[in-house]
Amino acid sequence: MASMATLFAKTPTPSQPLPKSLNTHFIPRLKHAVLVRTGPRSRRSLRVSASLIEPDGGKLVELLVEERLRGEKRREAAGLPRIKLSRIDLEWVHVLSEGWASPIRGFMRESEFLQTLHFNALRLDDGSFVNMSVPIVLDIDDAQKRRIGESTRVALLDSADKVVAILNDIEIYKHHKEERIARTWGTTAPGLPYVDEAITNAGNWLIGGDLEVLEPIKYHDGLDRFRLSPAELREEFTKRNADAVFAFQLRNPVHNGHALLMTDTRRRLLEMGYKNPILLLHPLGGYTKADDVPLSWRMKQHEKVLEDGVLDPETTVVSIFPSPMHYAGPTEVQWHAKARINAGANFYIVGRDPAGMGHPIEKRDLYDADHGKKVLSMAPGLERLNILPFKVAAYDKTQGKMAFFDPSRAQDFLFISGTKMRTLARNKENPPEGFMCPGGWKVLVEYYDSLAVPAENGKVPQAWDVFKDSSTLFDTKMLSKMSLLIDKKHEDLYIAKGTEGALISTVVDFVFASSPLAAEAQAILAAKEVSKLNLDSDF
Amino acid sequence: MASMATLFAKTPTPSQPLPKSLNTHFIPRLKHAVLVRTGPRSRRSLRVSASLIEPDGGKLVELLVEERLRGEKRREAAGLPRIKLSRIDLEWVHVLSEGWASPIRGFMRESEFLQTLHFNALRLDDGSFVNMSVPIVLDIDDAQKRRIGESTRVALLDSADKVVAILNDIEIYKHHKEERIARTWGTTAPGLPYVDEAITNAGNWLIGGDLEVLEPIKYHDGLDRFRLSPAELREEFTKRNADAVFAFQLRNPVHNGHALLMTDTRRRLLEMGYKNPILLLHPLGGYTKADDVPLSWRMKQHEKVLEDGVLDPETTVVSIFPSPMHYAGPTEVQWHAKARINAGANFYIVGRDPAGMGHPIEKRDLYDADHGKKVLSMAPGLERLNILPFKVAAYDKTQGKMAFFDPSRAQDFLFISGTKMRTLARNKENPPEGFMCPGGWKVLVEYYDSLAVPAENGKVPQAWDVFKDSSTLFDTKMLSKMSLLIDKKHEDLYIAKGTEGALISTVVDFVFASSPLAAEAQAILAAKEVSKLNLDSDF
Repeated sequence: MASMATLFAKTPTPSQPLPKSLNTHFIPRLKHAVLVRTGPRSRRSLRVSASLIEPDGGKLVELLVEERLRGEKRREAAGLPRIKLSRIDLEWVHVLSEGWASPIRGFMRESEFLQTLHFNALRLDDGSFVNMSVPIVLDIDDAQKRRIGESTRVALLDSADKVVAILNDIEIYKHHKEERIARTWGTTAPGLPYVDEAITNAGNWLIGGDLEVLEPIKYHDGLDRFRLSPAELREEFTKRNADAVFAFQLRNPVHNGHALLMTDTRRRLLEMGYKNPILLLHPLGGYTKADDVPLSWRMKQHEKVLEDGVLDPETTVVSIFPSPMHYAGPTEVQWHAKARINAGANFYIVGRDPAGMGHPIEKRDLYDADHGKKVLSMAPGLERLNILPFKVAAYDKTQGKMAFFDPSRAQDFLFISGTKMRTLARNKENPPEGFMCPGGWKVLVEYYDSLAVPAENGKVPQAWDVFKDSSTLFDTKMLSKMSLLIDKKHEDLYIAKGTEGALISTVVDFVFASSPLAAEAQAILAAKEVSKLNLDSDF
Repeated sequence: MASMATLFAKTPTPSQPLPKSLNTHFIPRLKHAVLVRTGPRSRRSLRVSASLIEPDGGKLVELLVEERLRGEKRREAAGLPRIKLSRIDLEWVHVLSEGWASPIRGFMRESEFLQTLHFNALRLDDGSFVNMSVPIVLDIDDAQKRRIGESTRVALLDSADKVVAILNDIEIYKHHKEERIARTWGTTAPGLPYVDEAITNAGNWLIGGDLEVLEPIKYHDGLDRFRLSPAELREEFTKRNADAVFAFQLRNPVHNGHALLMTDTRRRLLEMGYKNPILLLHPLGGYTKADDVPLSWRMKQHEKVLEDGVLDPETTVVSIFPSPMHYAGPTEVQWHAKARINAGANFYIVGRDPAGMGHPIEKRDLYDADHGKKVLSMAPGLERLNILPFKVAAYDKTQGKMAFFDPSRAQDFLFISGTKMRTLARNKENPPEGFMCPGGWKVLVEYYDSLAVPAENGKVPQAWDVFKDSSTLFDTKMLSKMSLLIDKKHEDLYIAKGTEGALISTVVDFVFASSPLAAEAQAILAAKEVSKLNLDSDF
């Protein structure tokens, strides 16, 4: 296997030792990463390729306070009202600080929030629009609002009570949760992961303002060195003399179908006349739902896939996109695309049902599988971005490898769903040869193996724990009357008894997920519709 | 009282006798209305004032088939698959046929539908945007879709099976109802009037295409002569040499506070340098919810108010806006404004909580009262329209008339809510002198009086009839266990008993409405939240 170190052959040697858990590396930290984004002098030293797409608003927003001013800012922050950030809040501070959401300069004020909800676009002073489809907001509760009082600034603290940023010229406005949810997700059904995680129990107020971030956001999870900022990515693309950058957003393991697509995209771009198209393979690194494969495992898997030489290290940049995941389908895919413009991408690959998931309580996908690419192609503010629709790849039995599906010989193709893939990995079985490189597959098997071990407190979580707060849908009596049988042999899930003794008997796909409880939980929901689930819509 | 005939003093005498029920008239039918919109020759004869705002897309869409071609089109229609239109569908055909929704030329295809839902705007070929916030769509069910088969055209029929229009180059696509509702209303709560009326039981498919309308849509309700098309309104404004047109949308009786606002707006426009600003007083004439005052009564009331000389007939055009009402707040107000651009208005008056209503199941207004005007001022495609925020008028006790509220002497003002107004009218009591002209008030009293009479079938409808289909919120058992007491003396509504014998006791504002059943129905819903209703947020 080719060493992954070749991937960034042109970049300097990393300045820090690699953590043990990842003893090969493919995204070394840029030597002067901080300098690149702290002052005009260092920015001038950046070789800007004429072919890189301009950031939204013309200039990449960077909200990191210059190092020499940080002490002073910390002293100022000490006297300000404090807001403690959740993990997701901190991820948004990260996103904002590096300009992924350029031209916005902090958590949204009401005008930006309303434009985002209603128009998925912000109007600039010159009358033009930039895309902005997902609210980037910070909530506070009544008590916090009172504590802030007449202050025009607040300090934002991380979970260890360290001041992370100052929010200036604040505006506090009502957090209309139901409307935010309905307009962002196109549903208010209970069970939307981001809603449950970050909105349902959030405060009744939103606080917007301009951010001053006191130092780069780090997670100390061994993966920080893979988190390149838009400025760093632009520098990398420029170094490589990219004349086209095509971005591939993903939050799942990479199989050879994905690889085929990425390789084929480069071929098409070369045919279009580009001399050096560079792939930005850009896994999402912020909040994901419980049954997604966690970032650390995905990074290991991507690394193995790349080591196998399936993708060309010379023309591939792998980095982590720090945004949390909304699972808001056609609304969110715009955010995914827009953020990549700011990182220098002028081509965006979009698949079936991007950022989609199963409907939380109905027997169907939440979004129309084609809406994502349609909405993306029509979205205000994304005119400069070239949208590349995903071609369908399947396992070609005649060639023994992944190939683009040819409807004229459909019988030759095998569709291996994500569900099937996960089931195989869980059972330590192998997929057909050529579906995924052996190293990548091994990582997946290891990951699912790790789930069989009880959690740290020694207790294996139950589906009940997930659902105890879902009283909006089922009352507790109804839930407690349900009994669950999992027939592991057939990988099917039977819900044998429903409420009031009536038999609700249904078979659903065994949804293999990051935790057995997710599968059971989905099954309970599915029971309401006596449905067959298909949760495997996104890539 | 001045005769209302003076209002349109400069227009020709109507060509048809006036119906008895309205023996004064303020919107005579234009003599050559049909000619105006059927061919380039007649359009050339229209005096177009340089100061009238251009329609969206540059040219007013008119979809009426020329008279000489109608026979041929009827013969073509006879051989096409047929779709029967509901009353609301027919209202949309009306809206589309006259170009209120210019530049769209028929029921939306999926591309327009998606842009409407996600962006509230449609992109034109030249890259510019026109506003379009409310889906104008036609649903069909599975059986209708099968019957249409491979046909590229369908005939649209009214309730009497008369062919109204042909829909050409059709596109059939999925009707994602939940998503449509969530993105349009910002909620999916049960009880949204338009949703209950037109979406919940609608077909699972939408059919879009280009309309050819076979003759002008008429309702034969004695009010057709008041329904001027955008072309007719533009002709009227041109005749009057308007150099500014300011539109006032309403769906409620006009009181002197409204009149003050309209008069004051004209004064402000004169101060701005306009020589002849004309008011378009433009009551909405399509579908409204059961507890709104019906169009015919509102028109009688408006007429009396105008007869009283509260508004200047020389500078006022009263006409009916044929659109159905969505009650979709900030989303819908954009449609209300956009349609008036097409009718020639370049100023739009917007009030508190436009197109809003009480939340159907929670104790609050559905929309933030300020969002409407904020969203309107930011909406893509409405840049050319001047938004005039509504000033708050209240009854000034020191002057004995409606005046703009002066917070420095708040104690002098009396706020008379719509609820209070309706309660007084129902009880045949008089409001403070100067609140509304006596003639207009008398119409309201007569209207509420008429509601005490049982319906034509001799049966007074029960709240139950309204709610029998609302099983999404309450099951029938729960509803049937509820008993309702209306304490008319206190104008309060008590719901004494809830499900399973538990006492749900709550007092809500007595919502005086077009029918007692609406009030009871709202009360049943309110009971869930043990809430105080305020349904009187819109003007």
